[in-house]
Amino acid sequence: MYKTKKCHDCDMPASQHALKALVLNGSLKHGKDAVSNTEELAGLVLEHMQQHKVTGEIVRLADKNIPVGLGFRESPDDEWPDIVEKMKAADIVLFATPIWWGGHSSLMQRVIERMDALDEEYRADGRSALYNKVAGIVITGSEDGALSTMGGIMTVLTWMGFTLPPECAAYWVGEVGQPTTTDRERRLKNEATKHMAKNLARNLVYYAQLLKEHPLVPKS
Amino acid sequence: MYKTKKCHDCDMPASQHALKALVLNGSLKHGKDAVSNTEELAGLVLEHMQQHKVTGEIVRLADKNIPVGLGFRESPDDEWPDIVEKMKAADIVLFATPIWWGGHSSLMQRVIERMDALDEEYRADGRSALYNKVAGIVITGSEDGALSTMGGIMTVLTWMGFTLPPECAAYWVGEVGQPTTTDRERRLKNEATKHMAKNLARNLVYYAQLLKEHPLVPKS
Amino acid sequence: MYKTKKCHDCDMPASQHALKALVLNGSLKHGKDAVSNTEELAGLVLEHMQQHKVTGEIVRLADKNIPVGLGFRESPDDEWPDIVEKMKAADIVLFATPIWWGGHSSLMQRVIERMDALDEEYRADGRSALYNKVAGIVITGSEDGALSTMGGIMTVLTWMGFTLPPECAAYWVGEVGQPTTTDRERRLKNEATKHMAKNLARNLVYYAQLLKEHPLVPKS
Amino acid sequence: MYKTKKCHDCDMPASQHALKALVLNGSLKHGKDAVSNTEELAGLVLEHMQQHKVTGEIVRLADKNIPVGLGFRESPDDEWPDIVEKMKAADIVLFATPIWWGGHSSLMQRVIERMDALDEEYRADGRSALYNKVAGIVITGSEDGALSTMGGIMTVLTWMGFTLPPECAAYWVGEVGQPTTTDRERRLKNEATKHMAKNLARNLVYYAQLLKEHPLVPKS
Repeated sequence: MYKTKKCHDCDMPASQHALKALVLNGSLKHGKDAVSNTEELAGLVLEHMQQHKVTGEIVRLADKNIPVGLGFRESPDDEWPDIVEKMKAADIVLFATPIWWGGHSSLMQRVIERMDALDEEYRADGRSALYNKVAGIVITGSEDGALSTMGGIMTVLTWMGFTLPPECAAYWVGEVGQPTTTDRERRLKNEATKHMAKNLARNLVYYAQLLKEHPLVPKS
Repeated sequence: MYKTKKCHDCDMPASQHALKALVLNGSLKHGKDAVSNTEELAGLVLEHMQQHKVTGEIVRLADKNIPVGLGFRESPDDEWPDIVEKMKAADIVLFATPIWWGGHSSLMQRVIERMDALDEEYRADGRSALYNKVAGIVITGSEDGALSTMGGIMTVLTWMGFTLPPECAAYWVGEVGQPTTTDRERRLKNEATKHMAKNLARNLVYYAQLLKEHPLVPKS
Repeated sequence: MYKTKKCHDCDMPASQHALKALVLNGSLKHGKDAVSNTEELAGLVLEHMQQHKVTGEIVRLADKNIPVGLGFRESPDDEWPDIVEKMKAADIVLFATPIWWGGHSSLMQRVIERMDALDEEYRADGRSALYNKVAGIVITGSEDGALSTMGGIMTVLTWMGFTLPPECAAYWVGEVGQPTTTDRERRLKNEATKHMAKNLARNLVYYAQLLKEHPLVPKS
Repeated sequence: MYKTKKCHDCDMPASQHALKALVLNGSLKHGKDAVSNTEELAGLVLEHMQQHKVTGEIVRLADKNIPVGLGFRESPDDEWPDIVEKMKAADIVLFATPIWWGGHSSLMQRVIERMDALDEEYRADGRSALYNKVAGIVITGSEDGALSTMGGIMTVLTWMGFTLPPECAAYWVGEVGQPTTTDRERRLKNEATKHMAKNLARNLVYYAQLLKEHPLVPKS
């Protein structure tokens, strides 16, 4: 089955790459603002995935109306249901967030809270709408907090039904006490971060492809 | 100095109790909604503090307009500056939050992000506007996450300049997998939670009083 | 390929189940002591996996000599190298730990520290000896800390090269402030915990089987 | 009372400085080994405290025999009871640890587990032997994890009865992916870390002195 034309970077047949990726960017910056460090790093992961014929879309959460609450639709102009549709259509979902005081942003936390609607659906029908989807995490912060932020998000994602491939994140954090104005410059030069972005892309694509061909379908 | 009429519950002179407490409630519920478990437990702590002549106010964050951002005033109708004023006027601040997936709510996270404005002020003038204030934490969740949520909030509070007394929190979390509809009933019967609420109140008042009389005034 | 005799509980051909599982139990109790809650729950996961023809072994870390250090062999009687061999031979590794103050035990932390030797090897040859292995987590605690403990362990495991299936843990935590002497009794009755143990077993086996047939083999 | 000869660095009367500090160093290195980054930073905090006439002692946990367990004395040669005596005699306790995978070391975790004996004593007599003691935290890691490690330790310390002054920690963490061989060099140049060490020393001494004169003595 895995014997024909191979991708230059992995063992998958190139012909079978036709996956969709969604990035949820929890940056506090709005889309019209100057560059989001988080989005730029997520963009790098997407770029690597495009070499595997994955198409990608980035949703900037700060530009969406996602009210507080636990229902599926909290108000007539609630944009959460659209995001749920995008998640359900995607094979790969990247959760991208800046670090604020050691944790993910309030916008990423809002997404986590609102995912409870999906979770209730899951409980109702005995399986998750997010099974057989693969998740990755992208994190940037001036200093400290990447692993802890990862751990918090990973915990949610596994219970939501996502699969987490090895080395499921790419991040950048700087040394304590440096001027935040140079964050971007230092990040762009960081080889460890570039390496993580490339590995993350490869692993997400490999697992998404594998689960597309061999989905876990729990018996009720 | 500590020799006259004593409070019935601690070693402080009763006459000197005249402290202000502020509760920031990060419940996802709005004020008009049914009872917030978090607010009810914070209310119990306030009640105990009232026996020490502390006056209290609860701010329900879900009822305030606190936009995303890192400035002191993000929009003309931004209510964050009012909250800052209330914090500056208070001797004791209680950070109260429900648990969502092991962490504090998006509303509490928003407060943490917005406190960065205070932090910049601190950096500018070499000392914190929140020095000599005492902080406590109130947490409720259906199951799991209280200690981790505490740790995350404590980390922020100490760097903001707050003092954390011993046993600086009161919380309730239930056994894994129980019906959330019975959370309130089980919480109200929980003796450990009641004990924490009482101790928290006593310790907050003791330290706030002590720092009011003997404030730490760092040399510049 | 997946077309012949199916397992009663999943979509895998029963004939292909021949996986090895290893449990590392970080309980503070020694093997000769009364029952370890953690081991008993890990044992339940193993039992479910045995229905999928998985053979299992439990290593009680408290009974092993695993000295402090970061080398592969820290002393002549260091038992860590044996544990590494067992890990390398396993398809599935269960990290089982009690909760102490919101985190994993010192014995589990010792394993995490010692795994750095593997990590150095990984850096040396450009790939991980733990790639294509699947990991699960088992946690028990009197109250609180399961999600946070999970997150901390998941972070390590993903960077070590393990795959984390959906719902990659089974845990029990009780209500705050209950007598710890009744932990076992309450745990044994808990349906949510039993459900997690069953799902965890199924998902571990499914992913281990899938990766056995379709391993990720990164190009150097 | 606070009117006479003042310390050059704070508002305390210099004559009243006569405090004892204890450092518990959870470094994985033994005392005979090359320098522990963690110990060096803890030493800097001690140095600053000595200017306030505080005498200090460092215990390297790797050099002590502290077996697994939850009793006060786990074996005839258990050195934990001695450490408890030193803690009880100290006014200030510094918990110093390296970071391994985002958390404190197994040696620091061992101390946390063993402190449960103190905790049981606390429950028995209704107050903590650690009340009116002040705690600080010192953390070093090649990259990431300081805030999360802080939070985990702070949670334990507050429930143990310690007081946490503002800015209760000093730490160093570097940028992701740098050679660990240069950690020390980068740490020694880091102004933010030096600033934290100085502030931590000042705040620990201030609060320890304050509580020595005005201890919280809970009514039974």
